Amino acid sequence: MPELRKDPIVGRWVIISTERGNRPGNWREKHEPVDDGFCPFCPGNEDKTPAEVFAIRKHDLGPNMPDWDIRVVPNKFPALQIEGEDYRRGEGLYDLMNGVGAHEVVIETPDHGLEFSDYPEEQIVQILLAYRERMLDLKKDKRFKYILVFKNHGRAAGASLEHPHSQLIATPILPKRVVEEIEGSRLHFARKERCIFCDILHQESSSGKRTIAQNDHFVAIAPFAPRFPYECWILPSTHFSHFECMESTHYDELAAIMKTVLRKINKALTRPPYNFILHSMPVQDDIAPEYHWHLEIIPKLTRIAGFEWGSGFYINPVSPEDAARQLREADG
Amino acid sequence: MPELRKDPIVGRWVIISTERGNRPGNWREKHEPVDDGFCPFCPGNEDKTPAEVFAIRKHDLGPNMPDWDIRVVPNKFPALQIEGEDYRRGEGLYDLMNGVGAHEVVIETPDHGLEFSDYPEEQIVQILLAYRERMLDLKKDKRFKYILVFKNHGRAAGASLEHPHSQLIATPILPKRVVEEIEGSRLHFARKERCIFCDILHQESSSGKRTIAQNDHFVAIAPFAPRFPYECWILPSTHFSHFECMESTHYDELAAIMKTVLRKINKALTRPPYNFILHSMPVQDDIAPEYHWHLEIIPKLTRIAGFEWGSGFYINPVSPEDAARQLREADG
Repeated sequence: MPELRKDPIVGRWVIISTERGNRPGNWREKHEPVDDGFCPFCPGNEDKTPAEVFAIRKHDLGPNMPDWDIRVVPNKFPALQIEGEDYRRGEGLYDLMNGVGAHEVVIETPDHGLEFSDYPEEQIVQILLAYRERMLDLKKDKRFKYILVFKNHGRAAGASLEHPHSQLIATPILPKRVVEEIEGSRLHFARKERCIFCDILHQESSSGKRTIAQNDHFVAIAPFAPRFPYECWILPSTHFSHFECMESTHYDELAAIMKTVLRKINKALTRPPYNFILHSMPVQDDIAPEYHWHLEIIPKLTRIAGFEWGSGFYINPVSPEDAARQLREADG
Repeated sequence: MPELRKDPIVGRWVIISTERGNRPGNWREKHEPVDDGFCPFCPGNEDKTPAEVFAIRKHDLGPNMPDWDIRVVPNKFPALQIEGEDYRRGEGLYDLMNGVGAHEVVIETPDHGLEFSDYPEEQIVQILLAYRERMLDLKKDKRFKYILVFKNHGRAAGASLEHPHSQLIATPILPKRVVEEIEGSRLHFARKERCIFCDILHQESSSGKRTIAQNDHFVAIAPFAPRFPYECWILPSTHFSHFECMESTHYDELAAIMKTVLRKINKALTRPPYNFILHSMPVQDDIAPEYHWHLEIIPKLTRIAGFEWGSGFYINPVSPEDAARQLREADG
């Protein structure tokens, strides 16, 4: 059983998941990918993954048949385990709990060689709706407080399999960064009675300096104090706290702007590895006036020195105004 | 002039330092090191670095002569700039300030091919005393609130030059991680009237499960909730809030335990890249009963996915009990 442990000084929870590999060889960073030509995510290999929990398919051949467009399966090496109590306990000073949760893989396309922005917009809409579907299903389980949706594209960004996929991790605790964002937003709301993200959107659209793209319902900006070069945030231009609670038409617009921004990134930065991460209000919480969901896209261009995550102090060699200008001007 | 900018949501300061390279080619991660055989840190090349600010030398030949054992020079491409006002200002919602600070390089040895734990203990003592010397000198400048001391060893850990060196960055703000640790420690002190690190040391030495090494004045442990496999902390076994305020004899013991722990890491993990980072009370603050300085050592073994720094949520495949046992048993 994986374990969740809390750092007693700064309150950060981490997952200790030894099932994911006990010997250094299994999890240590390798510079060369092992490519034996076999892909468990390609059509025809449905029996090489755990049984699917959701799929969109062409001909309704039935579960785990090869006619799918999108397929969601449990991760074969999950960081958290679905069965078990969310039993919390102390050990002297320390706090820990059972590592219950869910860890799923969204196989985004049957086509092994594509990248997210290569998909037709309709495919991206379906992927976003698959995220929503899984979030709505997983949130019924009241043990799960947060559902992390993210994508690692490219080995340097942490992807271990090449076939295009994203991931969902449902956790019984709130990740530290989420807690910080919500606390920061509440502080602003308490002072101003306004959402800080709405305020940011207002200031950014007035100045235009850090705007990358926009459409009817979404804006893409380079944030004012980015940790990483060419970091981009996509936010709905009207207030929504929960990703999974938007109207259906919004997902069309979101797909369009994601495709545009990723195409611009690919153009300006020659198809870099990247991560995207959905930041949304915790799934069990009510609609909140103070928090605004958003998607963070982080091209992986620099080697992050341990001192940066040891100190929380980041040095960014590219100003967001420069990054936004370059991305604005790149074809999208 | 570099700029310090604050994220308005979570309050994290970042350095925007475009002087360090405007074009992607200059700062983008490269997989192959450029090795033209020339090393600006080797003896004889003293004129290839800015003039030294501190040195320990064999024959007293005078500044910037090649008879040094340890040499401290300003970074040729500093993240922060020494001249200028620490002028703070707002821009609508946002907060920013001039990027004033200092960025120095501690060249640890004239010998290009050594690693930290290869040095004789006396050399390590001298390096630690050089850190202290520079901290005591830089803290006289009241603009500087914090002095980050860290080492990136190996390219995968962020080192751009091979010749063994560590770095000091003096900053006009407190790094986020430092603020979090101090706030967490104060909370514990307010409740218990005890230092949380002293409590941790007490619990760890009773259980012994996560102890790696110890000597008269220091203990090395694997922390209870480590983000990274084989993360180690070295702490003084009696309470000290400031690294630079220890008694001289303590630096001998610290050198000994650093050498032991790094040798164990090299043995157990086949000389991995690593970072170490000094966490100490802010230099302008008084001796504090609630905070305990310590050194964090992080072997760079895994590829950290962007989602981990996007969410603050870490999955660690090795339990600290396993890591501590392996390191305890490895030759030191």
